Amino acid sequence: MLRLPATLMRGGTSKCWVFDAEAMSAAGAAGGPGGRLDTILASAFGATDPRQIDGVGGATSTTSKAVIVRPSTEPGVDIDYLFAQVGIGTAGVEWASNCGNCATAVGLYALRTGLAKPVHPTTTVEMRNENTGVRLSATVPTPGGTVPELGEATVPGSLALGVPVALGFRDPAGANTGALLPTGNGVDRLELPHRPSGIDATLVDAGAPAVLADAAALDSDALETVGDFAALVPVLTALRRGAALRMGLASPHDPVSHSVPKVGVVAPPGDYVTSLGERVAAVDYDLAVRMVSMHAPHPAIGLTSAVALAAAALAPGTIPAKLAENRPIATLLRLGTPAGVVTAEVSLDDTGTVRTVTLHRAARAIATAELFVPALLQESV
Amino acid sequence: MLRLPATLMRGGTSKCWVFDAEAMSAAGAAGGPGGRLDTILASAFGATDPRQIDGVGGATSTTSKAVIVRPSTEPGVDIDYLFAQVGIGTAGVEWASNCGNCATAVGLYALRTGLAKPVHPTTTVEMRNENTGVRLSATVPTPGGTVPELGEATVPGSLALGVPVALGFRDPAGANTGALLPTGNGVDRLELPHRPSGIDATLVDAGAPAVLADAAALDSDALETVGDFAALVPVLTALRRGAALRMGLASPHDPVSHSVPKVGVVAPPGDYVTSLGERVAAVDYDLAVRMVSMHAPHPAIGLTSAVALAAAALAPGTIPAKLAENRPIATLLRLGTPAGVVTAEVSLDDTGTVRTVTLHRAARAIATAELFVPALLQESV
Repeated sequence: MLRLPATLMRGGTSKCWVFDAEAMSAAGAAGGPGGRLDTILASAFGATDPRQIDGVGGATSTTSKAVIVRPSTEPGVDIDYLFAQVGIGTAGVEWASNCGNCATAVGLYALRTGLAKPVHPTTTVEMRNENTGVRLSATVPTPGGTVPELGEATVPGSLALGVPVALGFRDPAGANTGALLPTGNGVDRLELPHRPSGIDATLVDAGAPAVLADAAALDSDALETVGDFAALVPVLTALRRGAALRMGLASPHDPVSHSVPKVGVVAPPGDYVTSLGERVAAVDYDLAVRMVSMHAPHPAIGLTSAVALAAAALAPGTIPAKLAENRPIATLLRLGTPAGVVTAEVSLDDTGTVRTVTLHRAARAIATAELFVPALLQESV
Repeated sequence: MLRLPATLMRGGTSKCWVFDAEAMSAAGAAGGPGGRLDTILASAFGATDPRQIDGVGGATSTTSKAVIVRPSTEPGVDIDYLFAQVGIGTAGVEWASNCGNCATAVGLYALRTGLAKPVHPTTTVEMRNENTGVRLSATVPTPGGTVPELGEATVPGSLALGVPVALGFRDPAGANTGALLPTGNGVDRLELPHRPSGIDATLVDAGAPAVLADAAALDSDALETVGDFAALVPVLTALRRGAALRMGLASPHDPVSHSVPKVGVVAPPGDYVTSLGERVAAVDYDLAVRMVSMHAPHPAIGLTSAVALAAAALAPGTIPAKLAENRPIATLLRLGTPAGVVTAEVSLDDTGTVRTVTLHRAARAIATAELFVPALLQESV
């Protein structure tokens, strides 16, 4: 049976199994997405079972994630990484997205494993996401050139402590479609089944492609609990497909993606209570948001979705820009998510182009492991 | 930070993190349940978070389990093991139960790690569960004295293949209370809040203490889907407490246990569809059952609950005996669970005492790991 080294990292509110590309190559999966690499990941995670009971997967969208890391050949970049959303109840592996939580974890992983060299007092790991071509940076405190095992940083949605990681998304606009607003419009009207008049949404490409619907058009205030928001998942899944076509991310005959683009609803801020029971007042944030992850409500917000929202909010005429127009600091967007407030800092250049969106996150190594992969039972690689 | 070696095993439909008692001793947790051992497990699993996002726990009752294994000092017994149900959203660890799925995993683990010596063609590992004092055996095919990494065995509730393990519960009756029927009755009437007339149930102690209510008295047919059965969890949780008092497992001033005794409903067989979509006909099994695990429906049945049911069905006058009286083979009880049919073989001695209840199961090693335990950050053990 194949024995595969891997590290379980927490990045923010996700768990990510991180693999070294060299180990994957040794297992015969040097070819990247598709084929043997998918087989190995699906088997290691126990993906075909809806509870992932026969593997290391956690059977939720935020705990069924893998990353393959390699040294980068690009000048000025330390590492390249490939993100995999491993199927739950299906052997399929989705390769079309980036994951900001896993990027956070990978930044710390690179320092732990020597893929990036820690220097006093902080180290910035430069990273390239191979799925999307997006450039990211992870800045970690490394006093005396040592890599901390734990720190005092937290993220909304978890009380757990971790190493603080400032995650920067570099030049995030247009990585998938060539433009921040792929249709050229701040608002597009999209068709929906059983809704002849369609619905207004902003189609944006920054960090990840995303479709952000005006919550009010769906009788939502984007303040719902995760449980209540589940009722909107079917209509938003249909919206995701329509947006994928409109943004040129898919053709009508392509299989339907369950992860691209990101999809959710936005609304003006209102008072609400987080999943952990904390009260959040409308004045404490700028824009209410509820996102979908695969086929379920996202417990917080995907970081790439947060980047898309922050970039959209700085683009005049978009729905997020209109709904968050009263925010006190134009370049700071505070997002009200089911887990709490996520703050995105946007830095613009002289032309008004988004240069970096930074999110303050936390990560830690949970375990190092050797995984036994039954799909390759017959081989002893 | 504490670094702790551990092995992730699948046993049937559970995932269990198996720890060597020596490694736990080295971590200063030689004292057993309570104190430091609980702190280490809760921290390693990320127990305080309801999604166990900062640890190796799987955030469900069947994936938040740990076992600590040691060589036994008892003649004729290979290993002793201690089972822990690690909290989900709480740092609490429950030590009052045994877990049959983990026992299956531990049998294979003992052979893998040399705690028991494999011999041709099959090896029976003799085990003692320290939580309950129960004796168990795990019989594994070991051709040529080698331990298989995988086999062709499956269990209801999962399509995953594993090494076949025949799990025998030795002399299961009365381990907790001294008698198969602790009250001396086949049927007892228990009080319930908002139900002045009470409800009939069988209180049995075999494998684990269990309270088995007549489903009909709760307007149930014990054929519900897991989702529908959830509606009965609150009343069965109240029943568990009442039964704990009646069986002498707790005193009125003790804290309420969320796992002892096992609680569920039983009914005559009927046609139903399993969670995986398979049709099960009434003629294909003998007794319908729906059990509770902690505060949620059990997706299948706990193996110790299956032992309790099988032993109860062979005791005249109990509810299971009456409901399953038409079964074709008296010593074979086929249980219709949400995941499919679980078959228990009962062997009796000349006096009619239950000697062994055997269940055919599957197990495999998923990963070996070194866990980083932040609770002990300050120490380098």
